[in-house]
Amino acid sequence: MIDYIRDGAEIYRHSFATIREEADLAVLPDDVAGVAVRMIHTCGMTDLVDDLAYSLDFVEAGRRALEAGAPILCDANMIASGITRKRLPADNEVICTLSDDRVPRLAEQLNNTRSAAALELWRDRLPGSVVAIGNAPTALFRLLELINEGVGKPAAIIGVPVGFVGAVESKDLLITRGPAPYLAVRGRRGGSAMAVAAVNALATKEEIL
Amino acid sequence: MIDYIRDGAEIYRHSFATIREEADLAVLPDDVAGVAVRMIHTCGMTDLVDDLAYSLDFVEAGRRALEAGAPILCDANMIASGITRKRLPADNEVICTLSDDRVPRLAEQLNNTRSAAALELWRDRLPGSVVAIGNAPTALFRLLELINEGVGKPAAIIGVPVGFVGAVESKDLLITRGPAPYLAVRGRRGGSAMAVAAVNALATKEEIL
Repeated sequence: MIDYIRDGAEIYRHSFATIREEADLAVLPDDVAGVAVRMIHTCGMTDLVDDLAYSLDFVEAGRRALEAGAPILCDANMIASGITRKRLPADNEVICTLSDDRVPRLAEQLNNTRSAAALELWRDRLPGSVVAIGNAPTALFRLLELINEGVGKPAAIIGVPVGFVGAVESKDLLITRGPAPYLAVRGRRGGSAMAVAAVNALATKEEIL
Repeated sequence: MIDYIRDGAEIYRHSFATIREEADLAVLPDDVAGVAVRMIHTCGMTDLVDDLAYSLDFVEAGRRALEAGAPILCDANMIASGITRKRLPADNEVICTLSDDRVPRLAEQLNNTRSAAALELWRDRLPGSVVAIGNAPTALFRLLELINEGVGKPAAIIGVPVGFVGAVESKDLLITRGPAPYLAVRGRRGGSAMAVAAVNALATKEEIL
């Protein structure tokens, strides 16, 4: 037998305590700090705090929307897969349209990536939704375009696409424009797991379920 | 209209070129470098190279197993969800047993986390498989225990659990014991996306499909 902690709840408690000890959470509003803890937990990096950007109404707006039954719109199947359903306050729908049969054709028509084209199928659901973009910068760019076109605004935007082409720029544009309450991670870092962590943190204040 | 690159293949090419330019891939064997590129792509961090640990036979063993039809055993549903099925050379099965109805009871019996208990349902499939652990350190600890008990060895182990309790220690133990060809990320970093990237890289040498 190897010696390690085998109690799930104890692992969570220990992890969150370590994060609260090491991360510079004092610079964040309390409600954002709670979200940050989960995001740090999912990536193992306490310095994520340095790159967090957010509007002050993000947590309250996102939480209120979820409690009112808002759908969660995701740009990647991994995000939809990772959201803990039992944390959701209103059995909220979790939607990812990336694998919809219509998307490849929409991508051709729009001359854009499939990740961006998949947002065409969000139009009806977008107003008042919670958006979680953790993969494709083009999806975040496209979201900003749709909002600019006058498609109704989401209640809250989690904008944490990752990578080397467009990730920095799309998140900077989200932060500059701030078209709706938002949370973003500046720079190249991001990803599906961070998006999931932010949704799971919004969904309930309970840290351990 | 916002000005951004909208061509998926061009985004991939550009991303991989940036990674190859910035990351210190020269320290890695060629075949591991190919895997590293995808892992860096998925997390946005070129310094991941510094924390990579691997056995020299990892890529060849993993690739051979997948080509021969080995199943891929994952510790998290997000990993199973993220693996690109069309990259797989033999329509390989992708298995995550975490949500199996038997797991909560097994966890009680074993006095371990559900992530670790889920490996009880891997026993028959483990020999010759490709294992991808990207979430729970306890799953990696449990894998090492099972191998030690004499359950047949996997063909290759991707060991990239993430976090603050047991992640460092479980990966260090994998690296020290090296019970089968392995790839790991030392330290706290890791996650489902890195595990997915490593599987997708093993699955085919093609960078863009």
